[in-house]
Amino acid sequence: MKQSYFLYILFFTGCAFGQKNLVQFVNPLIGTKNAGHTFPGATVPFGAVQLSPDTDTIPLFFNGTYTGDVYRYCAGYQYIDSTIVGFSHTHFSGTGHSDLGDILMMPANGAIQLNPGTNAHPELGYRSVYKHENEIAVPNYYRVQLEETDILVELTTTERVGMHKYTFKSDENPHVILDLVHGIYNYEDKNVWTFLRVENDTLITGYRQTSGWGRTRTVYFAIVCDKSIRNYALLNMDKLVYKGFWRNFDQTTNFPEQAGSRVKAHFDFDLKAGESVQFKVGISPVSTAGALENIQVEIPHWNFDKVKLEGQEKWEKQLEIIEVNTLTKDDKISFYTSLYHCFLGPTIYMDHDEKYKGLDQNIHTAKGFVNYTTFSLWDTYRALHPLLNIIQQQRSSDMINSMLAHFDQSVHHMLPVWSHYANENWCMIGYHSVPVLADAMVKGIKGFDYAHALQAAETTANRDFFEGLGAYKKVGYVPEDISGSSVSKTLEYAYDDYCISKMAFYLHNDKLAKQFESRSLNFNNVFDKKTGFMRPKLSSGEFKRPFDPLDTHGQGFIEGNAWNYSLYVPHQPKKMIALMGGDEKFIGHLDSLFEMELPAKYYEKTEDIMKEGIIGNYVHGNEPSHHVSFLYNYTSEPWKTQEKTRMILPNQYKAKVDGLSGNDDCGQMSAWYVFTALGFYPVCPGSNEYALTSPLVIDAVVHLENGASFSIKTKNQSDKNRYIQKISWNGLPLKTPFLSYTDISNGGELYIELGPKPSKNCFKLMDNH
Amino acid sequence: MKQSYFLYILFFTGCAFGQKNLVQFVNPLIGTKNAGHTFPGATVPFGAVQLSPDTDTIPLFFNGTYTGDVYRYCAGYQYIDSTIVGFSHTHFSGTGHSDLGDILMMPANGAIQLNPGTNAHPELGYRSVYKHENEIAVPNYYRVQLEETDILVELTTTERVGMHKYTFKSDENPHVILDLVHGIYNYEDKNVWTFLRVENDTLITGYRQTSGWGRTRTVYFAIVCDKSIRNYALLNMDKLVYKGFWRNFDQTTNFPEQAGSRVKAHFDFDLKAGESVQFKVGISPVSTAGALENIQVEIPHWNFDKVKLEGQEKWEKQLEIIEVNTLTKDDKISFYTSLYHCFLGPTIYMDHDEKYKGLDQNIHTAKGFVNYTTFSLWDTYRALHPLLNIIQQQRSSDMINSMLAHFDQSVHHMLPVWSHYANENWCMIGYHSVPVLADAMVKGIKGFDYAHALQAAETTANRDFFEGLGAYKKVGYVPEDISGSSVSKTLEYAYDDYCISKMAFYLHNDKLAKQFESRSLNFNNVFDKKTGFMRPKLSSGEFKRPFDPLDTHGQGFIEGNAWNYSLYVPHQPKKMIALMGGDEKFIGHLDSLFEMELPAKYYEKTEDIMKEGIIGNYVHGNEPSHHVSFLYNYTSEPWKTQEKTRMILPNQYKAKVDGLSGNDDCGQMSAWYVFTALGFYPVCPGSNEYALTSPLVIDAVVHLENGASFSIKTKNQSDKNRYIQKISWNGLPLKTPFLSYTDISNGGELYIELGPKPSKNCFKLMDNH
Repeated sequence: MKQSYFLYILFFTGCAFGQKNLVQFVNPLIGTKNAGHTFPGATVPFGAVQLSPDTDTIPLFFNGTYTGDVYRYCAGYQYIDSTIVGFSHTHFSGTGHSDLGDILMMPANGAIQLNPGTNAHPELGYRSVYKHENEIAVPNYYRVQLEETDILVELTTTERVGMHKYTFKSDENPHVILDLVHGIYNYEDKNVWTFLRVENDTLITGYRQTSGWGRTRTVYFAIVCDKSIRNYALLNMDKLVYKGFWRNFDQTTNFPEQAGSRVKAHFDFDLKAGESVQFKVGISPVSTAGALENIQVEIPHWNFDKVKLEGQEKWEKQLEIIEVNTLTKDDKISFYTSLYHCFLGPTIYMDHDEKYKGLDQNIHTAKGFVNYTTFSLWDTYRALHPLLNIIQQQRSSDMINSMLAHFDQSVHHMLPVWSHYANENWCMIGYHSVPVLADAMVKGIKGFDYAHALQAAETTANRDFFEGLGAYKKVGYVPEDISGSSVSKTLEYAYDDYCISKMAFYLHNDKLAKQFESRSLNFNNVFDKKTGFMRPKLSSGEFKRPFDPLDTHGQGFIEGNAWNYSLYVPHQPKKMIALMGGDEKFIGHLDSLFEMELPAKYYEKTEDIMKEGIIGNYVHGNEPSHHVSFLYNYTSEPWKTQEKTRMILPNQYKAKVDGLSGNDDCGQMSAWYVFTALGFYPVCPGSNEYALTSPLVIDAVVHLENGASFSIKTKNQSDKNRYIQKISWNGLPLKTPFLSYTDISNGGELYIELGPKPSKNCFKLMDNH
Repeated sequence: MKQSYFLYILFFTGCAFGQKNLVQFVNPLIGTKNAGHTFPGATVPFGAVQLSPDTDTIPLFFNGTYTGDVYRYCAGYQYIDSTIVGFSHTHFSGTGHSDLGDILMMPANGAIQLNPGTNAHPELGYRSVYKHENEIAVPNYYRVQLEETDILVELTTTERVGMHKYTFKSDENPHVILDLVHGIYNYEDKNVWTFLRVENDTLITGYRQTSGWGRTRTVYFAIVCDKSIRNYALLNMDKLVYKGFWRNFDQTTNFPEQAGSRVKAHFDFDLKAGESVQFKVGISPVSTAGALENIQVEIPHWNFDKVKLEGQEKWEKQLEIIEVNTLTKDDKISFYTSLYHCFLGPTIYMDHDEKYKGLDQNIHTAKGFVNYTTFSLWDTYRALHPLLNIIQQQRSSDMINSMLAHFDQSVHHMLPVWSHYANENWCMIGYHSVPVLADAMVKGIKGFDYAHALQAAETTANRDFFEGLGAYKKVGYVPEDISGSSVSKTLEYAYDDYCISKMAFYLHNDKLAKQFESRSLNFNNVFDKKTGFMRPKLSSGEFKRPFDPLDTHGQGFIEGNAWNYSLYVPHQPKKMIALMGGDEKFIGHLDSLFEMELPAKYYEKTEDIMKEGIIGNYVHGNEPSHHVSFLYNYTSEPWKTQEKTRMILPNQYKAKVDGLSGNDDCGQMSAWYVFTALGFYPVCPGSNEYALTSPLVIDAVVHLENGASFSIKTKNQSDKNRYIQKISWNGLPLKTPFLSYTDISNGGELYIELGPKPSKNCFKLMDNH
């Protein structure tokens, strides 16, 4: 009853939702300008299809020259662009490297153009000018008016199917371009093979095989349309023609099969002015047969609005897991758009028959779990996966099973580092699958094999070939002369090793636990007492010279400098504070970090974030400092955590197209927002503990999968009342600024009274921590 | 008991077989010099693996220039070459176009060389000089001594697995090259993608994806070895490096995964001088997992000799289907080598789990049949498939089911024309799957769906886009200005249409039968009474000018001239004879054909055969005339068939390396030999009738699958006694020089008395035919 009533409401009120109507607070355009790298198109929670406009693509190589610009079009869309190339079906959300953009479709009128043209000269190709005033982006619905051709494009999706509706104002040769050459990043060089078939006058199948960021990647697809194709051409744009036998039948017009590395096509329709043609585009990691079945299962009809509304209902259900009240509408938009971004990935990577392509390029069946892909683990282990471990436990378990399957298929015998679409792309450092596994295990997430997880983690942590790991095991740190970014690696390995020791303790494997507990102390080995920083060391045991703790380049770090990275001992904050000279000195370091004025030469070199992503020398736009503002909680001045996080939240997240100061990084930036706005944060995933801060929300209810609810209530919430005055859990005062997962999972209420000035006595018993 | 005794004999007597020991009469080197295009390597009957040495490869493009030489290395091996590049796992037998040569392995000593070097300068690469005196080629066993490195190579196979044994005389860095770039034809341009993994120190997996003659073709493989790999490197020879993220671990040595369009590898072993290393290489059309399973099922041990002998036992069993006595040992070698060539294909194309890749590039399961590939139908419909319809009925049914599956997967809705490895390569003309289906149906072969076969044939014959077929249906012939080789096409379509009418009659679809019977008379429409030849006609209805009936080029024919092709009405020989002026004139035409002296300018242009393949103007080295010598049987002078076939047999087939005058064409040339040597031939596959001639054998027994036997006995057989004096079937005199399949399938004895002169009264009652 409830559901059908809900559907009724959705159906008859259009954009107006039921009472809760949280979907209205999601603005998919947030982050689409500059470095956020989000996409505005249509998708459902964790959907395999992200059907979104691509506004341009910078080739990695242009006229033989390396452009180096792999960043700008990670999500295919830049808000500032005035043209749209077309609509493709796969997009990363917020990454700092690009790939995907598969199966581009673009409707057009008049003369056939198979070249996309350029942003400056859209008339030279099939792309079109568009205006933001004629663009709508809401969850699972994207709509835009193409200016030159006066075609209205509407997009919606299910998990594995993108649905397009093109309404043509003109009847002058209405057609649709299908460009299998188009992709995001490295436009001209990426295609390995493309295959295209017109099975009948309403069914097209094919695949696109690329070697981009994913070295060996194939997306299969099936396209069905609701009008008959009148005329078509499948053309291979290769310089080399097919080397098979000469045939004297015409293979360029209405010839139903084409293959080559660069196949493009146009499909022409008989449409009257004002008529629409609709397409359902299924994708599959396995086969065109799988893609077609995905369509048949997910959209067995042609009701575009039904698909759109059912997808929006899915979003509503997911967003309602956390209900918040905020001081301003913008805060609510920031909150729910962040939550939306958290639910864009990892994405489903299997067909309805449970088949998927594995890392070994064989077809596997996901037995008892849903297989996911796109694991940006260096980013997402920090807050996204810990968030999913609270509010998406079933999916979290499925993701872990996907990671274990990756391990089983890995010829390197490693858990994923940065993996997507049956590829390990080796991006960034560490083995941060491990904290994801550990966090889920410590939180008692059911549905995966804990012993297998531990074995996979231990094996991964012992692969000597991997980025200085052999040396790390031998000498207790990664020597900078053996493997660059050696301090970052040492610190992150040490933390990951802590997670393995936690897993081993949990499974009563004390020997292994102690072994990795010992390894987890390796952070000590790169600390330089003289400078007071973590610092790169050479094989000889000496620290590397020269040393500039403000520089992020060539100093033994990655996406961070010594000022930030020296704070990266999430599992031993007390030991770290002691190392760095004790409470007072440590507070001084943190204060300076936020307050110092970083010379331009440093932040100009900081990777992949806008200047706005930097506060003093604190870099929020990259991940290594995401826990830093919470470190005051481990000192005598926890109120400074409240101060900093309340400052960072509005400073770094704005409810506007350029509201994200750095890459959203597959939801990590947004997960930071969700946690922090609610007033708690997982400083050390794999532990049971969250650090508390002053919430941004007035109140919130988090609905857990076990049926319990966890609520946050504030008193005197305002922009000025940023400081915790009183705090209690289920009516009992909290003595430390920490909350345990055990508390949360049983449900309860966090009550916080806020005030304009720090209450320096709020957490008196810090030593108990 | 019998089998184990046989095995015992095989095992303990080495090359000496049991009583029958027919394997000894097979010489796989026959046809390896010049145009025969057979391969000398190891294989089992209809095996998916043809493990054979490749002696060179001429690239289709060399330094950007088209070489045009796609012929010479069709089978990878030319007897005249003095070097061997290595040993690859897939080879066509006797084709006139090249592809395959997948997964090349080559053992070597000393310094690693990843380049193959050249025939002139083998020292520049991993290839080696070899001598024929140190080479042995027998069924399912190939052995060669590599001169430079003193390595003994031995090869044997099962259906889907190649087994290598390399014995190293020297312990100086013994290693094996695995070259995934190597292939037959178009060496430098063909590779689309290669993928390689070292799963552990005795297991390698990967695949090779090419676009050669087969446009979209992939061979998956798994390699296991019986010694541990000590050291290895997987190297991508691409100009473009992998575009993934920079990593600072070494990916060039002992790094277990590599991909790119040009991957090569070396595997180094610790071997003492004199030690061997063995490899089992499984291939699969589906996956590396399938390839590995194929190994596990087919060779679950390391006993090389057992594999070799079991494969030879398979050959022995297949060869024993026809037992012959001949006048000379050479005749016996020619006979059994021909029979061997007949059993080299079509080849199995599915894994042990019955999965295979279909024409639609999806993975299918062969339900209730064995899937086969490599259908060179323009060649093999003539004699090979009719032969298999007598002596390999189960396989014939499986092949037809494979062709019907191809039809079901064909986006062109056509039965195979020339197909291999999930590709239609469209080579040659006609729709000659149809006579294969019709012949099997008329012969009552069980195991396939006759209605489906008819529907597939009818659909195929109505695909207007296909090579003038639309016009043919409209005007009754293929106009030369619409589609070249128009006379050949018209004549072959007409014959194929006859086959469809036969199928339709058989299934009581009289309407369809009459429709296609009518089409089958279209041969009339290209006959030019004025010149007395079949002749190309234009859309206007006029014959094309100028016209040279001796020329095979630009005259409306393919692989034949008007003199030969005018005789191509196998389903209506009487009508053809009448067209051509009646008995006497027709005999004159035939006589002239064999006796005229063809000016050099004509035979020099004849495709893909040696001058030796031409007798007068009769071209035996190409297929269109294969029935021609039997056409005398339809005249008043049937003794001339006996004369011609007894002349052609020793003239065109010799028991030596250059013994085949033209391409063996996947067994068609050899099937002609087998039939003709036995004294009968299927002039019109799809009919119930065989034309008789003077056997070459002294006697023969053909063992049929239904348990019956069909024997041929001669009296006074000798090289001079070529003419039939008396002939009887089961004791009753034959009145016409024809035998029916009904007779054969019931078993019986053909008794023939031979003499030195034609017995002109032998078949008196010709008019009864």
